[in-house]
Amino acid sequence: MSLRAATRVTRGLSGLLPCWGHGQARAPPLLFCQQRNNSTSPKIRVEFNPTSGVAVMHMQSPPVNSLSLDFLTEFCIGLEKLEMDKGCRGLIITSSQPKVFSAGLDILEMYGRSPERCGEFWKAVQEMWLKLYGSDMITIAAINGSSPAGGCLMALTCDYRIMADQPRYTIGLNETLLGIVAPFWFKDTMANTVGHRTTEMALQLGLLYNPSEALKVGLVDQLVPEDQILSAATQTMTKWLAIPDHARQITKSMMRKPTIDRLTSNREADIQNFVNFITKDSIQKSLRAYLEILKKKKT
Amino acid sequence: MSLRAATRVTRGLSGLLPCWGHGQARAPPLLFCQQRNNSTSPKIRVEFNPTSGVAVMHMQSPPVNSLSLDFLTEFCIGLEKLEMDKGCRGLIITSSQPKVFSAGLDILEMYGRSPERCGEFWKAVQEMWLKLYGSDMITIAAINGSSPAGGCLMALTCDYRIMADQPRYTIGLNETLLGIVAPFWFKDTMANTVGHRTTEMALQLGLLYNPSEALKVGLVDQLVPEDQILSAATQTMTKWLAIPDHARQITKSMMRKPTIDRLTSNREADIQNFVNFITKDSIQKSLRAYLEILKKKKT
Amino acid sequence: MSLRAATRVTRGLSGLLPCWGHGQARAPPLLFCQQRNNSTSPKIRVEFNPTSGVAVMHMQSPPVNSLSLDFLTEFCIGLEKLEMDKGCRGLIITSSQPKVFSAGLDILEMYGRSPERCGEFWKAVQEMWLKLYGSDMITIAAINGSSPAGGCLMALTCDYRIMADQPRYTIGLNETLLGIVAPFWFKDTMANTVGHRTTEMALQLGLLYNPSEALKVGLVDQLVPEDQILSAATQTMTKWLAIPDHARQITKSMMRKPTIDRLTSNREADIQNFVNFITKDSIQKSLRAYLEILKKKKT
Repeated sequence: MSLRAATRVTRGLSGLLPCWGHGQARAPPLLFCQQRNNSTSPKIRVEFNPTSGVAVMHMQSPPVNSLSLDFLTEFCIGLEKLEMDKGCRGLIITSSQPKVFSAGLDILEMYGRSPERCGEFWKAVQEMWLKLYGSDMITIAAINGSSPAGGCLMALTCDYRIMADQPRYTIGLNETLLGIVAPFWFKDTMANTVGHRTTEMALQLGLLYNPSEALKVGLVDQLVPEDQILSAATQTMTKWLAIPDHARQITKSMMRKPTIDRLTSNREADIQNFVNFITKDSIQKSLRAYLEILKKKKT
Repeated sequence: MSLRAATRVTRGLSGLLPCWGHGQARAPPLLFCQQRNNSTSPKIRVEFNPTSGVAVMHMQSPPVNSLSLDFLTEFCIGLEKLEMDKGCRGLIITSSQPKVFSAGLDILEMYGRSPERCGEFWKAVQEMWLKLYGSDMITIAAINGSSPAGGCLMALTCDYRIMADQPRYTIGLNETLLGIVAPFWFKDTMANTVGHRTTEMALQLGLLYNPSEALKVGLVDQLVPEDQILSAATQTMTKWLAIPDHARQITKSMMRKPTIDRLTSNREADIQNFVNFITKDSIQKSLRAYLEILKKKKT
Repeated sequence: MSLRAATRVTRGLSGLLPCWGHGQARAPPLLFCQQRNNSTSPKIRVEFNPTSGVAVMHMQSPPVNSLSLDFLTEFCIGLEKLEMDKGCRGLIITSSQPKVFSAGLDILEMYGRSPERCGEFWKAVQEMWLKLYGSDMITIAAINGSSPAGGCLMALTCDYRIMADQPRYTIGLNETLLGIVAPFWFKDTMANTVGHRTTEMALQLGLLYNPSEALKVGLVDQLVPEDQILSAATQTMTKWLAIPDHARQITKSMMRKPTIDRLTSNREADIQNFVNFITKDSIQKSLRAYLEILKKKKT
């Protein structure tokens, strides 16, 4: 089965699975159980260690782990499989691509696409956030490269963020620099992490922070030399695994549920809002200009 | 009259008194006026200085000022008496027990008790928080010992926190370590003090901070050598007493009312929620295991 | 035309203009276009540079830029003119008076006035805040002097605050010191800037911060030597002007709209609340005492 076909099927399945199972009894692992450990797919590679109960998700979509519809679909399926596996208690997310954690939303999904396709894409972005921000697992971002926009969002949804102490790397919600706008749930996630004022200034200016600035404002929790990032993440995970799961999960849900509810109760409107905005002529023009800059950079 | 009978009576009275008189005219001092100054009861000792208008409440319930139903009842009665006394403008809360401010909720009130008794206990915990967080008086916690869980909550409800600079002492909402969960109003009180992100991580991990860490995250406002804690509290109190009461009280109410309203409008559901959770077999098992560890420690 | 007559006329006009045009299409510049550049009025002097798109508003109402009804009316008209001018993208607010940015609300507007007049005054204070906090322009406060109470509020509504590094200058919402209370939208604006806890303590104590303290808690963003304040503001403005206006404006609105909505949906009640409070005998007595202290200071 081609990747295309695979993602189509799984996307279909995705609709049958609970969007966010937090607080409910976990459904028994169904379809994915057979192929549980060390599944490999083109854009995501998952290593699961049943002894420790920890999975490591390597994002390996060249060149920069852009969040395309295909990427997000695979990502959410991978996440769902782990979430349904009672043996999996912790998840470390990291990148296999050099110098980048994730470059964020794939601009090609927003430029020159039909409104229907844009809507489908945005729903997948929402799904990724809902699943990750509401995950019952302990989630740690091992940020071993730059992480702008959607890449930063992905890191912010985790429980803990460790960044490689490499001054060239940057992280931040820099949407305004492209003439677009971080939606309210990106904003909420950032404000929950660094507070209202830092968020207000960062989002208006599209600030990208280097690692030591990011640590200072609280956008990340810890800096380590790049070659120690996975061992540091594993060490931190051990500390978190010592906490009884049930109490930790209820506590996490209590902290995040109001923010999650804001999106789930406005999901359709948020999609419509995105589609209307992104398909505007002026915005499409901005994106084309940006794509041309990117093209020139490559040559 | 035995302590038991006394608390039963006063608990009865308590129902007749406004739960939280903030913003209303203070009721004229009624029953307690006669015995106003320097009242002494087994678990709480109150020293009131009519000249300064400041009361010091010494918690003296061996060994660790656990918040039992009896303790909470006495505490609330003492608080109510001071609150109704127009001459009393400030309250300093401290401990007479060595090395501990308060060890928090008494586990014996949660283990092996009937649902009714658990509900009565939880109502008393709510009452303590409502009275203290909404107090018209200036409240200062002089934290001269460790202050986990409910002890930390008590400190967080005050207007200002001074902690003894003794590295062995710790403070924090560490409920998850016991397999239980800090309820939403514990969470709200902590988030109002140290922000959303610090609260999210601290509650998930059940973090206990030493004094300098607590100062750094804002869980306490000031550290002093242990033998200077009461004089430091008195000095701070003098600064606060310089502010016109009426304006300060309205301001305090404006800051805290939304948080207080969340509990008052969900009080019964919160009790039910606690009772359902704490009487679960799995939770009772956790508590028994914890009690056995405590027993072993003693021997 | 006398100042009095001028402000009466303009106040009348003000009612015809949208209170807060954020998110709506900007109305075409109407009445004020003819006299657009470098308008001069007694209490406010505006320098507009059409090349940079930046206006500098000099507050020049001796002795201390008190926010009187006349001052506020002129200020709002000046702001409205700039807001409607598509060529104006940024606004720097500063003071022409020595040692003071603005001393805040004019006490003479609150002492010995009729309820009607008090209500009219309060509406103008609300208007100033609504216009400034919701401005589509980039707003920078160049705080070249002390800035208590309403002066601090004005600074807090801007996007960025630069303060002269002169230790004698102070800034803060010190209302309680006068026996009055900062209303909820002053509180919201401060909490959005420095968080809940710092706000709670600062408002209860009426804290005035010197520049380095203000920087530390985040009440201001940057300190510079006093003679460099306008050049520093211009430099910061250049950075903000590099961001596409539309994306920045939507982002700003997303951050501030919930706070603005709280006032717009309670505006009449807030006026009534202010009038009831300020016309109380006890409060009038406090204000008279304060005015007498001020008089003595002068002689």
